Amino acid sequence: MDTRVKVLFEPYGRKVEARIPSTILEVAQNNGIGVRSECGGKQACGKCRVMVKDQVGLNGVTDKEKIVLSEGEITLGYRLACDARLTSDADKITVMVPVESRLRPRRFTEWGKERRVKPEPTLRKYPVRVAEPSLDDNRSDVERLLDALHKEQDLVGLAVDLQAVRELPNILRSSDLVTVVVRDESEVISVEAGVTSEKLFGLAVDVGTSKITCNLVNLNNGETIRSRSMENPQIVYGEDVISRIAFSQEKAENRLMLQESVIGGVNTLMWQLCRETSLSPENIYEVVLVGNTAMHHLLLGLEPKYLARVPFTPVSKSPVDVKARDLGIEINPCGYVLFLPIIDGFVGADAVADILSGGIYRSGEPVLLLDIGTNTEVILRHEDRIICCSCASGPAFEGVHIEHGMKAVDGAIEKIRIDKETYEVEFETLGDDKPVGLCGSAIIDAVAQLLQSGMINGLGKFNTVAKIPRLRKAGNNKEFVIAWGEEAGIDGDITISERDINEVLLAKAAIYSASAVLMRKMNIGKEDMKKVLIAGAFGSQVDKRNAKTIGLIPDVDDGRIRFLGNAALTGAKMALVSRRMRRLAEGIPAKVEYVELATSPDFKKEFTNALWLPNRSPGLFHTAEKSVKKRD
Amino acid sequence: MDTRVKVLFEPYGRKVEARIPSTILEVAQNNGIGVRSECGGKQACGKCRVMVKDQVGLNGVTDKEKIVLSEGEITLGYRLACDARLTSDADKITVMVPVESRLRPRRFTEWGKERRVKPEPTLRKYPVRVAEPSLDDNRSDVERLLDALHKEQDLVGLAVDLQAVRELPNILRSSDLVTVVVRDESEVISVEAGVTSEKLFGLAVDVGTSKITCNLVNLNNGETIRSRSMENPQIVYGEDVISRIAFSQEKAENRLMLQESVIGGVNTLMWQLCRETSLSPENIYEVVLVGNTAMHHLLLGLEPKYLARVPFTPVSKSPVDVKARDLGIEINPCGYVLFLPIIDGFVGADAVADILSGGIYRSGEPVLLLDIGTNTEVILRHEDRIICCSCASGPAFEGVHIEHGMKAVDGAIEKIRIDKETYEVEFETLGDDKPVGLCGSAIIDAVAQLLQSGMINGLGKFNTVAKIPRLRKAGNNKEFVIAWGEEAGIDGDITISERDINEVLLAKAAIYSASAVLMRKMNIGKEDMKKVLIAGAFGSQVDKRNAKTIGLIPDVDDGRIRFLGNAALTGAKMALVSRRMRRLAEGIPAKVEYVELATSPDFKKEFTNALWLPNRSPGLFHTAEKSVKKRD
Repeated sequence: MDTRVKVLFEPYGRKVEARIPSTILEVAQNNGIGVRSECGGKQACGKCRVMVKDQVGLNGVTDKEKIVLSEGEITLGYRLACDARLTSDADKITVMVPVESRLRPRRFTEWGKERRVKPEPTLRKYPVRVAEPSLDDNRSDVERLLDALHKEQDLVGLAVDLQAVRELPNILRSSDLVTVVVRDESEVISVEAGVTSEKLFGLAVDVGTSKITCNLVNLNNGETIRSRSMENPQIVYGEDVISRIAFSQEKAENRLMLQESVIGGVNTLMWQLCRETSLSPENIYEVVLVGNTAMHHLLLGLEPKYLARVPFTPVSKSPVDVKARDLGIEINPCGYVLFLPIIDGFVGADAVADILSGGIYRSGEPVLLLDIGTNTEVILRHEDRIICCSCASGPAFEGVHIEHGMKAVDGAIEKIRIDKETYEVEFETLGDDKPVGLCGSAIIDAVAQLLQSGMINGLGKFNTVAKIPRLRKAGNNKEFVIAWGEEAGIDGDITISERDINEVLLAKAAIYSASAVLMRKMNIGKEDMKKVLIAGAFGSQVDKRNAKTIGLIPDVDDGRIRFLGNAALTGAKMALVSRRMRRLAEGIPAKVEYVELATSPDFKKEFTNALWLPNRSPGLFHTAEKSVKKRD
Repeated sequence: MDTRVKVLFEPYGRKVEARIPSTILEVAQNNGIGVRSECGGKQACGKCRVMVKDQVGLNGVTDKEKIVLSEGEITLGYRLACDARLTSDADKITVMVPVESRLRPRRFTEWGKERRVKPEPTLRKYPVRVAEPSLDDNRSDVERLLDALHKEQDLVGLAVDLQAVRELPNILRSSDLVTVVVRDESEVISVEAGVTSEKLFGLAVDVGTSKITCNLVNLNNGETIRSRSMENPQIVYGEDVISRIAFSQEKAENRLMLQESVIGGVNTLMWQLCRETSLSPENIYEVVLVGNTAMHHLLLGLEPKYLARVPFTPVSKSPVDVKARDLGIEINPCGYVLFLPIIDGFVGADAVADILSGGIYRSGEPVLLLDIGTNTEVILRHEDRIICCSCASGPAFEGVHIEHGMKAVDGAIEKIRIDKETYEVEFETLGDDKPVGLCGSAIIDAVAQLLQSGMINGLGKFNTVAKIPRLRKAGNNKEFVIAWGEEAGIDGDITISERDINEVLLAKAAIYSASAVLMRKMNIGKEDMKKVLIAGAFGSQVDKRNAKTIGLIPDVDDGRIRFLGNAALTGAKMALVSRRMRRLAEGIPAKVEYVELATSPDFKKEFTNALWLPNRSPGLFHTAEKSVKKRD
């Protein structure tokens, strides 16, 4: 009997092997995964709470756990990592390490190339002095307030949110001066005692299939105060969009569960940001959301079924602008939530935000924008035409489906150099720790460097004659050792295998062939391309030459390649901060043509060619062709 | 020790005396109050459930009750009337007979003089045929729907409620034809499979301090389908407006409790109407509410505190138009609830509706409108001026605070004639039962007839020399027997006492003096008065001559007096059915001047004069002066 069990630690995306009957805490510690444990595994401190959804392969909840954990926690699948033990039924176990049990906080690289826009938010705060009521002045509180806004601020014809009206009498009678929050010069959404003008905040949120990222923004000056992200909690209902849509159809209440879980995620981030900055959610008055079409539908509670069926029709494409309370988002209840419009069934509001933050909504020279993720959006602008498509590139560049892959958090190797002569490996790790896996940029580096050193061929297969210790067989797979066990923070070597490389090929082929189809459609060669903009969380540390070497992006001069980071989030923030940008974003879908890859005649050929390193079609990738060492 | 206990049965407003240790069921049966009991008081059938909020003076809950009643019911104060027994601690007991325990359904007279208006509701249903989605047509469901509304119905620029969007895909794919509910030609609030044009309903609701009345209206033809009313459930938190406002200040959550209880009442009536007519609440799309200012504030959840303090400033006077779901009113969640505007701290949306249904919003000859209730609104129109005031007339005309008073339900005496020679009494009773008490119209009859027969004098005191069996002493009170025990459905005689008559004098003095102040303010004598319109549920059976005889209303020709019934409800219905009427209603507050009685110089004198029968000031009431028999 095999006593080795696969354990996947989330949110790290770390897959490790473990022996029965280890405890989850032991497995975590053996593999450098930080789980808190203040009592040293004595079932006393309760700090090592982890969540295991499907507990087949674990011992039952012990009496000691029943003392430390609440009934509710046990129902939800919480265990003490120090008392949850692998049993012989175990095959694969997925362990979620909740934020409070993590030994070191996750460090996502939440950067996005900030494009400064003039702050002109839809929201403004107006301090006014409201007349006191008297027997001679029988106007209502609302009438006196509106009169003050008229006389002191020249605002007329304002509506007042009923919720804001409810507390108005006490606020007016508690303070001479009040501060009035007005949206779009048309609606009073809050009245606050005293002068609170400096407290005017908003949230920009990118709802990704696997990750939600949130910027807390000061609307007075347009600056991001703090940024936070987390796994999309919907992940427990399905890793990808299609499986979540399938889940939504199983039972009537599932759609609501999906909606509540992602809204719960946004609220969690919002509260976390408020705690860390000592702000009150009451002073957050607006949220601008972006996300792909499926996230758009699931967050807004729209029936998602038809997104997964021909002809993939979305329910609605328009921007959705509703009261925060209507969606259960826990900012000021009279505040608003705006989901930017989507373009099509496969191209969502994230692409709209990309186009906005990439600055390609106006006509101009050719620009290609790639927003790389589990789904990759590809957008090409030339003159006054913008075309786009979406491809299922898979999560390889996020470290998923790669044996030692992981996300770009502390402990991830992010840069790799392989000596072409000695095949020795140098690497750089995020944080100061020993490495525990490979993030996206390192995976690209590894494939490119292996290709350049002649260690793999154009089909991604290892050189069968090279006799070096780093190259070895592993079952019917071959693998190359990036970091030896003694260098690594895990119990074994960090490797990249033929199977991993194949995942990379599939991903990069999808992305490149989509770009190629669009470029052909507009008759644009790589030499015409003014800029290649690369968005996506993975992108920050990617080596441009290596990306070209593997044929991921068109082979243009390094100077024309720009990484945008989370461009969708940047776009959301621009629309939050500036009403001009918001109007621009709302007009983008009408300007963009969607290209259906499946029915594009040249797509299949482009894809097949792109499965080669760098590409079967010659002349496209000079960078690679020059640098690749001839095979021995 | 006195073994007699006062028991008040609600919602009948019947106060009776009972002996310890009677059961509540015995007391009810002895007094003709119908409480169901199928097992004959054997604690078995559970049909005699009653609610006793404060159980001091009752035995504890018995073991048999614990079997029949649920724990929740016991917590709420439910008892079996057949096992709840008066004890020696008893002084006053209030028993609420819930609807399911009533032997005969209450019959409120829910009439209102219907003024026919041309139906032109804000809501319309449009059947349209929406294009099917296809690979060649990548428009979203919403886009195709709006396009069909444009092409087939010439509607453009429509917003679509997010809630209506959520189910849209399944509806479009279930039916060729769909029916779209559009409000104000600007918003889609519902999309329904098939052709549902005939199902277009609304509710008109009058939220009174003591009673909520609700009309279910067919918006296609403007007809009332059915009408229902119930006690305002807020009554458990205080009988009058002031005590409810006081209650709202005791604890933070009380305001919400008051709001939820009245909204729960509206929902109960709505569900009852739907059950009785086999309609679905989904097909009710709009509710128009009226009520006095306190009811307005409490229903909308506005802070009511300052309504009870100088200078009595309301929070807001504007019409409030919100989604039904925002208030928790359980019609179609995308539907709307409109509370008509209020005039002042003391004159609410019910007066606006009175003015609308009384047709006095336009300039014209002098008209006086009285909406008689616990608070009476008095409105005077002359030429293009409308002035109004409000007076605390108390609930005497609703049978409250009158020894044998009751509301106008089955068993109430509604008409009385007293022979001027023999002092014999004839009466008519509502329903076919033996009488159990006196409703408002009978109380007016009794006072007027006693005055005319010389049995009481101008101060409402009984003739001390008359020696007739019907006139007798009762402690330090005097009373006149209207119905002898053997004629009555209760255990004893039905009487009217000096104390009762005094209550009537206070009420009619308040109402008349308010009218007189307004008439003097506009310099209008009774001879100038074109019409006197009397609204209020009590009014339907009032004898005009008797009302003039006691000096309740100005002494104008009978032909100029009109009873409107529930004019506020009629006005609400008019605003529901017709957008023109709604606009008129919304403009009424700006046209109406509020007159503060307390500061009116002549109010005190008018009030003191009006405490006489018919009035101390001579020449005002010829009807009475001619008919009153000279005192022996």
